[in-house]
Amino acid sequence: MEETFVPLRGIKNDLKGRLLCYKQDWTGGFSAGVRILAPTTYIFFASAIPVISFGEQLERNTDGSLTAVQTLASTALCGIIHSVVGGQPLLILGVAEPTVLMYTFMYNFAKDREDLGHKLFLAWTGWVCVWTALLLFLLAVLGACSIINRFTRVAGELFGLLIAMLFTQQAIWGIVEEFGVPQRENPQQTALQPSWRFGNGMFALVLSFGLLLTAIRSRKARSWRYGTGWLRGFIADYGVPLMVLVWTAVSYIPVNDVPRGIPRRLFSPNPWSPDAYSNWTVIKEMVTVPPLYIVGAFIPATTIAVLYYFDHSVASQLAQQKEFNLKKPPSYHYDLLLLGLLVILCGLLGIPPSNGVIPQSPMHTKSLATLKHQLLHNKLVSTARKSISKNSSLSQLYRSMQEAYNEIQTPLVYHLPSTMGLKELKESTIQLASSTGYIDAPVDETIFDVDKEIDELLPVEVKEQRFSNFLQSLMVGGCIAAMPLLKKIPTSVLWGYFAFMAIESLPGNHFWDRILLLFTAPSRRYKVLEEYHATFIETVPFKTIATFTLFQTVYLLLCFGITWIPIAGVLFPLLIMLLVPVRQYLLPKVFKGAHLQDLDAAEYEEAPSIPYNMTFEDRERQATATPIDGLEILDEIMTRSRGEIRHTQSPKVASTTPSSVGDIKPSYSPRVLQNAYSPRISQPRGIAEKGLGLKLTPSPRPSTLGQSSRGS
Amino acid sequence: MEETFVPLRGIKNDLKGRLLCYKQDWTGGFSAGVRILAPTTYIFFASAIPVISFGEQLERNTDGSLTAVQTLASTALCGIIHSVVGGQPLLILGVAEPTVLMYTFMYNFAKDREDLGHKLFLAWTGWVCVWTALLLFLLAVLGACSIINRFTRVAGELFGLLIAMLFTQQAIWGIVEEFGVPQRENPQQTALQPSWRFGNGMFALVLSFGLLLTAIRSRKARSWRYGTGWLRGFIADYGVPLMVLVWTAVSYIPVNDVPRGIPRRLFSPNPWSPDAYSNWTVIKEMVTVPPLYIVGAFIPATTIAVLYYFDHSVASQLAQQKEFNLKKPPSYHYDLLLLGLLVILCGLLGIPPSNGVIPQSPMHTKSLATLKHQLLHNKLVSTARKSISKNSSLSQLYRSMQEAYNEIQTPLVYHLPSTMGLKELKESTIQLASSTGYIDAPVDETIFDVDKEIDELLPVEVKEQRFSNFLQSLMVGGCIAAMPLLKKIPTSVLWGYFAFMAIESLPGNHFWDRILLLFTAPSRRYKVLEEYHATFIETVPFKTIATFTLFQTVYLLLCFGITWIPIAGVLFPLLIMLLVPVRQYLLPKVFKGAHLQDLDAAEYEEAPSIPYNMTFEDRERQATATPIDGLEILDEIMTRSRGEIRHTQSPKVASTTPSSVGDIKPSYSPRVLQNAYSPRISQPRGIAEKGLGLKLTPSPRPSTLGQSSRGS
Repeated sequence: MEETFVPLRGIKNDLKGRLLCYKQDWTGGFSAGVRILAPTTYIFFASAIPVISFGEQLERNTDGSLTAVQTLASTALCGIIHSVVGGQPLLILGVAEPTVLMYTFMYNFAKDREDLGHKLFLAWTGWVCVWTALLLFLLAVLGACSIINRFTRVAGELFGLLIAMLFTQQAIWGIVEEFGVPQRENPQQTALQPSWRFGNGMFALVLSFGLLLTAIRSRKARSWRYGTGWLRGFIADYGVPLMVLVWTAVSYIPVNDVPRGIPRRLFSPNPWSPDAYSNWTVIKEMVTVPPLYIVGAFIPATTIAVLYYFDHSVASQLAQQKEFNLKKPPSYHYDLLLLGLLVILCGLLGIPPSNGVIPQSPMHTKSLATLKHQLLHNKLVSTARKSISKNSSLSQLYRSMQEAYNEIQTPLVYHLPSTMGLKELKESTIQLASSTGYIDAPVDETIFDVDKEIDELLPVEVKEQRFSNFLQSLMVGGCIAAMPLLKKIPTSVLWGYFAFMAIESLPGNHFWDRILLLFTAPSRRYKVLEEYHATFIETVPFKTIATFTLFQTVYLLLCFGITWIPIAGVLFPLLIMLLVPVRQYLLPKVFKGAHLQDLDAAEYEEAPSIPYNMTFEDRERQATATPIDGLEILDEIMTRSRGEIRHTQSPKVASTTPSSVGDIKPSYSPRVLQNAYSPRISQPRGIAEKGLGLKLTPSPRPSTLGQSSRGS
Repeated sequence: MEETFVPLRGIKNDLKGRLLCYKQDWTGGFSAGVRILAPTTYIFFASAIPVISFGEQLERNTDGSLTAVQTLASTALCGIIHSVVGGQPLLILGVAEPTVLMYTFMYNFAKDREDLGHKLFLAWTGWVCVWTALLLFLLAVLGACSIINRFTRVAGELFGLLIAMLFTQQAIWGIVEEFGVPQRENPQQTALQPSWRFGNGMFALVLSFGLLLTAIRSRKARSWRYGTGWLRGFIADYGVPLMVLVWTAVSYIPVNDVPRGIPRRLFSPNPWSPDAYSNWTVIKEMVTVPPLYIVGAFIPATTIAVLYYFDHSVASQLAQQKEFNLKKPPSYHYDLLLLGLLVILCGLLGIPPSNGVIPQSPMHTKSLATLKHQLLHNKLVSTARKSISKNSSLSQLYRSMQEAYNEIQTPLVYHLPSTMGLKELKESTIQLASSTGYIDAPVDETIFDVDKEIDELLPVEVKEQRFSNFLQSLMVGGCIAAMPLLKKIPTSVLWGYFAFMAIESLPGNHFWDRILLLFTAPSRRYKVLEEYHATFIETVPFKTIATFTLFQTVYLLLCFGITWIPIAGVLFPLLIMLLVPVRQYLLPKVFKGAHLQDLDAAEYEEAPSIPYNMTFEDRERQATATPIDGLEILDEIMTRSRGEIRHTQSPKVASTTPSSVGDIKPSYSPRVLQNAYSPRISQPRGIAEKGLGLKLTPSPRPSTLGQSSRGS
């Protein structure tokens, strides 16, 4: 994306790009059929559960001004609007933890002012929203999003980890509170006697850890050894919501002698009662706010605007990472404009605004990549089987698969030639076949193992459409009506879910990977090299990695620390935003350009040349040929990576110099090197080279994945 | 072992064999130095914790006639005597679950008899012990143990799984009871109010699952990626006792408002009070038992004798499995004779007798194999380093390592030539070196990676000595004195430990592996082939495996069910013993000889020939050359196997016929086939062929491991 600050140009470009594919955004969603429900429910739970408990948190922090009804309403309303008229439908909107923090800071400020107080708090936040929206409009119109490329990995990942820390903090606080007396309850009731509180706390530990452990396990169901493939797939797709149900059911097991209120369940006003909506008339009260405060509202509005600008853009960026090979264009400027509209709408309704959320947005894209993989797989397998049953040769088989592949592709004006996607498949199939003379002989399934070969050669693609986002937003809206049902979920299950979300967001975060690397025993670092790993592990000295990571950790702790400061904490988004210039101007003075590029690629920097030795050993490397399920590979790629990844199976490298990862000679081909500054994925060599189970020539061949598809 | 029934010959042979190595049994133990503490504490905890809680169980079941003081006393006394004058010092003695069941059955019978009752119960069991001992003497003298070969895997593993089920049952009951009112306590106390009982139960869940999960994790510490090698080793060696300490500490965290008695802790009489020993004068009361009951005691005595004969022999057998490559002779007959003496001794003292226990005995051998590996490794690594620093050639290096290896070997009369152990090392080293011309050039660590190469080539050996057993028995004795300290352990931690013991005993049990195989999805069975696996998986049709496993499962459930029948349950050992003739005479009529041999090798049967195809594909298989830590390999071998294991890395086999494991063509060399009836280990091919990191000729070469060493 070029950096242009001509007013409105960004918005116009975004609109032009997205309008072209608008119809397909809907038809594509419908064509997926019932399978669309897997990503939809997955994201629905990931979206609704935090929003509900942020509502509970806000209720305590604002003395009941805002509740889960309001947070759900905001999430549903903004989600529906965004999914229908928004630019990038992969982006999930919701009331986020930083918003909760902001509203808490603002309430603490407002409640003690005589001429504001509890009563006018929402009206005042209405003004804050108005100012925020105006600033967002300004940013959108002036093309502020075209500097999105300066939001490098270092800032985005720090923000991601901050969110994970806030989630974890909430989980821990939540469990600790299960042992205490909740504010709003009558402390005389049976369930709040010390003995029952002890039991409640212990039960909360059982429920939350139960949910956490089983949810993590269920996400890995695809690689389980037991159960039918259908069951494993079902558990992997729906396991997390299923576990919420299971542990809610478990929470009903103790009945004898156990009083009501153990375990504690969601506390929210009945949405069917009239006073649940008292705040929706807040627009009328906005005029009664003293003028000084109307002007003063500009101060929190600036930090909220910075926060939303950053958060919304980074969430959108993370949902559109290069390795997803998205085919449809981004829409940063227009989405920011729309966000401004949504902020005003929410402010006038007296509900907290929603913005693009992490980690749900990238989770959404990942789950749609899984869906697309399933669809492609099924289509191609049935085509291949049909073709084989007609006694086709391998080249005929390939042609019919290519046709089927093209059929399923989005017929868009701007996207790259559709042969691109299956190029890999073609290359290996044809190359291997010709080397063995199979090319014109009829194939059967012993030569071409349909299920496995197709899985392993399919590129990463995403089912880009609006339907899943729209549907999940509707379901969030349905939650308001279903509140009486939702109230059956124990709060402790929520805390477990928070911890689960925090843990789910870690893999693929390079910052987190580097923290783990610091704790990895030097003698075990070769294990990192055996898995999918980022390029920097091979090219940057360990000491540099350590310094960079320590700097980032200190910065993270600063950001986390500032959220604890009572009212000045409102400034924490500025500190995160500050990281962008720090990265651009300060870090290049401390770290070598080449290293910085590998640790945190920035497109605005020239890619300096890196000296490297391509050792003879690399050419001798053996490809392992273990059969792996395609979706398991996808799981691996999706969870282990968020940018450049690399997989080598090079025991010699590890065994000659096991003491330092940094000293290991880089082992990649010159072609990859030339593109060192652009994110890339290389498939595990074992898979790329496996083909029909025969050995290829051993020269490293960079995958086309990740370099193809869409301009940036 | 030949089957001879000449009276006393078995005992004489045993004594002759063990006396030869008696001195080395002690010196070998001392020479291991402080490292001996790792297996010692590991087994001490595995031995003491169940014994303590069996004591608690007996106390409830016998209205306080027997307590943990008595079970600990019996375990310590018998353990010390056995470790000093017993035959096989690898065998761990202790009061076992079946003994507890037997005593419970007997107490239920005795308590309602007017002329016996609670008062004379111990005196009567004294007579039972006398009769049992006489029967055991008879069995030992007449050479009953020479039919030990007829105790095939099918019976031993069924018994092992039965013990695991009893352990699990105890864990579940224990946790359920944490929610209830314990019998012996005053139900009016605060801690037993419904509210506190609820809290206590939930706390018990937290503590027991906490212990279970962390203990399982800590055993795998060697393969962790984080922490220094020393720390990982320490946690793997001492993690389980450490976790008992940690969770006991955790149980002290709740202090505010929580009454005494939460969580519940061990309840046992103070061993320092005089009436803790009231039963030790039981010998005086034995004469007052009515003659009818003295004669009648013969009935339970027969089943106990059968139980002990079976249990003691099987525990000893499992501790001396072939893949351990033990160098010292077994001692079944003499140990049975000694057991008779111990039973009389315990009977007269009024304490329940001890016998060889599962799973502690095989756990003991495994932990000593780990110890021996560490010792061998350290010795050879330091020798190799010294040799390399002198600029030796590879052949000189080999010679000096061979010398060091011989030095550390037990200089015994009857054992095989000591070159045997390092034969593997020699073969690969020399062969590889000569093929590359390195043989006379000076080596350095880039050619010969000392740490890794040595680890991977070391044979499985066991530090056979008496010291660890003696020491752990002393420590169990020390527990009686330390009872006031032990009482700080929460009972719930015990239940977690019971579940841990049950789970630890499962891996390597073919019966269990086959049950898992039944639940493995057909499309995933190839994964089993990629790991260490038993031969039968490749040679026996899946349907036959399933039938055999179902038969064994039904038999297991019968045995388990019979323990639930009030007094007739006393007969359950007979049912297990019955499996020996069933295996010998009935099963060969149902299953093909060849399949039966692979499922349950019996030396008394001729090994029939199995048709096989050696496919061309096998020759093409690629060796993977991932560097693995030697002790991790040992962990794998030790836990995954209890007999014939096999490891192939043959993706083609799996991908051509993934639908049935049984249909996969067997892929082993003729030489292995000729020995099909003798248990064997083949090392993972990747390791056996790795050598100096260069490729070997691809012909499958069966390892010498497991075929060597000791006659049977």
